Amino acid sequence: MSASITDNACFSPLFADAEVAKMFSSDTLIDRMIDYEFALTSALIKAGSVDTKLGASALTAIRTFKPDIAAIGQASLVDGLPVPEFVRQLKAHVGPGLASAVHVGGTSQDLLDTALVLTLRDLSEELSKRITGIIDRLQVLDKAQGSQPLMGRTRMQAALPITVSDRLVTWTDPLKRHLDRLAELRPRVEQLQFGGPVGLRDIPGGHGDEIASDIARYFGLNCPERAWHTMRDGVAEYAGWLSLVTGSLGKIGQDICLMAQQGIDEISLSGGGTSSAMPHKQNPILAETLVAFARFNAVQLSGMHHALVHEQERSGTAWTLEMMCLPLMAETTGKATAIASQLIDQIEQIASP
Amino acid sequence: MSASITDNACFSPLFADAEVAKMFSSDTLIDRMIDYEFALTSALIKAGSVDTKLGASALTAIRTFKPDIAAIGQASLVDGLPVPEFVRQLKAHVGPGLASAVHVGGTSQDLLDTALVLTLRDLSEELSKRITGIIDRLQVLDKAQGSQPLMGRTRMQAALPITVSDRLVTWTDPLKRHLDRLAELRPRVEQLQFGGPVGLRDIPGGHGDEIASDIARYFGLNCPERAWHTMRDGVAEYAGWLSLVTGSLGKIGQDICLMAQQGIDEISLSGGGTSSAMPHKQNPILAETLVAFARFNAVQLSGMHHALVHEQERSGTAWTLEMMCLPLMAETTGKATAIASQLIDQIEQIASP
Amino acid sequence: MSASITDNACFSPLFADAEVAKMFSSDTLIDRMIDYEFALTSALIKAGSVDTKLGASALTAIRTFKPDIAAIGQASLVDGLPVPEFVRQLKAHVGPGLASAVHVGGTSQDLLDTALVLTLRDLSEELSKRITGIIDRLQVLDKAQGSQPLMGRTRMQAALPITVSDRLVTWTDPLKRHLDRLAELRPRVEQLQFGGPVGLRDIPGGHGDEIASDIARYFGLNCPERAWHTMRDGVAEYAGWLSLVTGSLGKIGQDICLMAQQGIDEISLSGGGTSSAMPHKQNPILAETLVAFARFNAVQLSGMHHALVHEQERSGTAWTLEMMCLPLMAETTGKATAIASQLIDQIEQIASP
Amino acid sequence: MSASITDNACFSPLFADAEVAKMFSSDTLIDRMIDYEFALTSALIKAGSVDTKLGASALTAIRTFKPDIAAIGQASLVDGLPVPEFVRQLKAHVGPGLASAVHVGGTSQDLLDTALVLTLRDLSEELSKRITGIIDRLQVLDKAQGSQPLMGRTRMQAALPITVSDRLVTWTDPLKRHLDRLAELRPRVEQLQFGGPVGLRDIPGGHGDEIASDIARYFGLNCPERAWHTMRDGVAEYAGWLSLVTGSLGKIGQDICLMAQQGIDEISLSGGGTSSAMPHKQNPILAETLVAFARFNAVQLSGMHHALVHEQERSGTAWTLEMMCLPLMAETTGKATAIASQLIDQIEQIASP
Repeated sequence: MSASITDNACFSPLFADAEVAKMFSSDTLIDRMIDYEFALTSALIKAGSVDTKLGASALTAIRTFKPDIAAIGQASLVDGLPVPEFVRQLKAHVGPGLASAVHVGGTSQDLLDTALVLTLRDLSEELSKRITGIIDRLQVLDKAQGSQPLMGRTRMQAALPITVSDRLVTWTDPLKRHLDRLAELRPRVEQLQFGGPVGLRDIPGGHGDEIASDIARYFGLNCPERAWHTMRDGVAEYAGWLSLVTGSLGKIGQDICLMAQQGIDEISLSGGGTSSAMPHKQNPILAETLVAFARFNAVQLSGMHHALVHEQERSGTAWTLEMMCLPLMAETTGKATAIASQLIDQIEQIASP
Repeated sequence: MSASITDNACFSPLFADAEVAKMFSSDTLIDRMIDYEFALTSALIKAGSVDTKLGASALTAIRTFKPDIAAIGQASLVDGLPVPEFVRQLKAHVGPGLASAVHVGGTSQDLLDTALVLTLRDLSEELSKRITGIIDRLQVLDKAQGSQPLMGRTRMQAALPITVSDRLVTWTDPLKRHLDRLAELRPRVEQLQFGGPVGLRDIPGGHGDEIASDIARYFGLNCPERAWHTMRDGVAEYAGWLSLVTGSLGKIGQDICLMAQQGIDEISLSGGGTSSAMPHKQNPILAETLVAFARFNAVQLSGMHHALVHEQERSGTAWTLEMMCLPLMAETTGKATAIASQLIDQIEQIASP
Repeated sequence: MSASITDNACFSPLFADAEVAKMFSSDTLIDRMIDYEFALTSALIKAGSVDTKLGASALTAIRTFKPDIAAIGQASLVDGLPVPEFVRQLKAHVGPGLASAVHVGGTSQDLLDTALVLTLRDLSEELSKRITGIIDRLQVLDKAQGSQPLMGRTRMQAALPITVSDRLVTWTDPLKRHLDRLAELRPRVEQLQFGGPVGLRDIPGGHGDEIASDIARYFGLNCPERAWHTMRDGVAEYAGWLSLVTGSLGKIGQDICLMAQQGIDEISLSGGGTSSAMPHKQNPILAETLVAFARFNAVQLSGMHHALVHEQERSGTAWTLEMMCLPLMAETTGKATAIASQLIDQIEQIASP
Repeated sequence: MSASITDNACFSPLFADAEVAKMFSSDTLIDRMIDYEFALTSALIKAGSVDTKLGASALTAIRTFKPDIAAIGQASLVDGLPVPEFVRQLKAHVGPGLASAVHVGGTSQDLLDTALVLTLRDLSEELSKRITGIIDRLQVLDKAQGSQPLMGRTRMQAALPITVSDRLVTWTDPLKRHLDRLAELRPRVEQLQFGGPVGLRDIPGGHGDEIASDIARYFGLNCPERAWHTMRDGVAEYAGWLSLVTGSLGKIGQDICLMAQQGIDEISLSGGGTSSAMPHKQNPILAETLVAFARFNAVQLSGMHHALVHEQERSGTAWTLEMMCLPLMAETTGKATAIASQLIDQIEQIASP
């Protein structure tokens, strides 16, 4: 339980995105950290840094590891991160004979950043699908109602007539460009993190770069020439993309709020919100929510760019700030795409009266 | 479950504040909404707007209401708020004979804003206590070690010698002023919300202001002359205060991070964080976290000030934005105060070598 | 010349506030730094730290000092601040015989922060006057047109009828509270800065606190017990107040934009903006600008709160960030108050049709 | 004159970037607006919408137009923009006989947005050059001193030894990626704006798209299929890029501040700042400034993303907010690149002692 509105059962269906939340959950994280240790030990074996037989036993043991997550959480309060306790438990689990084959050359940030980019990969896939769905819906709407007349409005004043299609295209085109942008930036984001304590891939026995390549291959990630522990440009760029998406959806929401005004009457929506005091009202709830989400992400993005000031070989402050802002942005973007689809489906008629 | 780091069991002990989270929980909210309906019906009876006998039965029935929170949450997705469904359920619970004695003249925002300021009152009490605790700890530390020498540093350069006390006073004094500020602003925040649909207190049968006074008295809140549905200055001011607190604690955290550097060695801390790769390290985790929390709240505060642009008689967008940012700020501030106390307790020695 | 829109002659009349700009100008700053040196030397004489006769000659010389501002600016690029070069020039001006009576015990931040709070004092006076003027205008408008009917609108939907007065009061009340807030916080802001290099008031010859009192008296400022070099809570609080003001004016602007829509037609304005392409349009320019200003300040405020993380005895980064954000906020707030007055004067009629 | 620190002669050499400022100046804007009108009339002639002879005379007249910029600025206060008055003056200048050949089918936003992207093109060229210069300097430094030992530091604690090169590569690599990113996004930004009043390219006489192509060819810009008046994703993306650049430079600055501490002593800089009170100090002014600039842009970026919520066919509020934030970000980025070069040149030695 947290104070967040996404956790308040009275509100959460409007704010929380279960699929995105799962991507950032402790269960997903734990699975990925176990996977990382598996891939690391596999690579160490292949590189000859870990004895084959010993390594094989370790791999088997890693696969049966069921960590005590509560204890890991408690240790975060001391260590700032779950990884040290996770590794302690894992080493205890595999036993003293195999502990030397585990977590060799890795550091907390290797596990956590790799888990993050795997989550961002899943998120990119999911958001791509959803944005494509929104574009499709908008195109269907355009086909059906695009030729209807609409008053063009500039500076909130009636200007000259346009068509519904002219408005819809300004909703759709940015979303298409966001898919292009995502395709461009994904390779910069989906990068294995592997550097060890200070980013050098300085493995006892050497072969750090080969080990990195192996782990990257295991995860289907790009393998950067070196660790990006302190080079957070990829993550900040990704956050910017999330906020571009919610910003464009916020424009749709803002337009719909304005179109739904009595006296303007340019849109009719099914399933509008009811009021506890005024049963005659039909509030454009989802449209308003899109605007709020756009502003929320515009706010968070600032935090992600502050986190670029990531000092030395690892910043506890900048990294922590990132951990606080990025999941909020991801879930907000996820929910915004879900809401946008739902909202477009609610549009019954769109035209100036 | 949400994507937030406060909900990730691997991290939550470092980020979540159980006491503050409870203040913003659905259970607390539901209790307060029931309380509000109770106080409203009581006031309606007293004002003669509701028949005494009918009202008494309604009051009894209100007290036994156990809402279906899941259904309320689902309705939020339609209504943007839990209140309409809450009222539907409540009216069904009391039955058609008593429904006319319930939620007369109230609107969603009356319930939710009143619940919010009651939460902020609890939060203010709790934070006051914690800040006082931090001040006390700093004064104890000052008494014990204040006379030790410390190198004064400006622009990150050694400047001239000061004492530990000279540094500690710059940690303590702002906290004292924050308590003064809180005392000044609390009366502006702890204001009953009661206005009805468009803020007019336009009760069938009249006596809106008396009813407002009665409800305010019930809750021990101030009774403003009119509803503050769209006047969010009190809430924004409160958010500013929260960020002042975390900002001042962030300065302490930043100083401690710098003092803890090897080569500077001005502080020794017990219980520093461990590293998964470097057992010799003692990381100043809590100090770093304070810096991250200060920046996180500095970011969120922006959202709260955007929410001042609250159009007409109620803004779905601005209010929603507020609902997203303020609980995050509250919990972050709560946890920052908890962490600050813990961190000061970890200080073993503080002095320039 | 800068890139800022306030400096672009094609736009500046809409964005720049000449009175506020003057308060933050180099001329004002230079005058205040000279004043500071005068007050400091006076106080040193009184405290016996500077010989009376020597001091008197120094005071006379200080008063005739005409610094080379361009050279001071250039030195900022090296020193980060204009003060070291200012002092070099001043010492050269008074000559080697009197140099020992000048800038004794002061540091750059003493001069600059004192100059800042003197500017903030002027700004507070000016903004108080302007806000009072806005309140007056709104009350005149209320008297004239308050009884007219207006459709109350919630979530951008027509709700129930209210009067113009009901709306106007939500524009006016926050402004009144802002004046109260300002009265409360001014004493916390209008504090002399005097601490010397590391804030200790460690004057050769002693009497630091008396000297501080003397300088404070000279300027009519409060004299804090110690320097607030790194305790930026007063300045951050002031920035929050500026953003509260623009936020409340932004709500007025947003409401007017919405009221001015054709189809809503709740307000008629004289002097609306023209369009290069559509002569029939009357754009509610000033109302839109108020919304933009509110959002601009909501953004900047975040920077001011980041600047609370002000490390050790002086932070070059946090202080610089403050210097960048606060003047922008001040001018924006100044211009917002000017625009708000002008906008209210443009209101010809306000009522639902 | 404005309140901005870039305009304060005591400070401006540290904050202002003359080259960037020029790009955003009224002179540059006026030149571009005249150019636009020239290109538009040329295209109209070619499309047959304007009589060839009449058009030729108009073209000649446009080239001799010297607008009254002060009057244009004053009109901005009424129109929100300089264009309507600019066009009035231009039409008066060419005279009633030729006025019909001028500004046909264009709108204010066509001129201003095109002027903006031309400025952003210049800015991209200039910043590319400067960033390349920084990369070169860092590589020279790496060649000279990269093999020196440096203590790797994580969470502000000494971790394990690395080399200077290992640190420098984390300064350099993000800058290289920023050049890649810029190459990708420039085509999305360098788009002609041409849409007319409501974005339809609805020219009397038709041929709107051909006219757009012609104007685009004149300026060497891409010609989008339709106007992007309300689709601000390109501009917001550009702002994100600016903040990525300053963020990466801020990391360099933060590292240097930390390395320059006495007790750490990992860097020696020539030309550090002096103190008015402590002549022995050498402050790492430029490094600190880079950090402040990173945070300033991280703050402004939020405003640019709020401006994505750009309602209907033109938003006076969102566009105004953009106009306020983007030039500040551009100049800050420009100056950051200048300062970064200067700072790297100041590095005399870099190595752990």
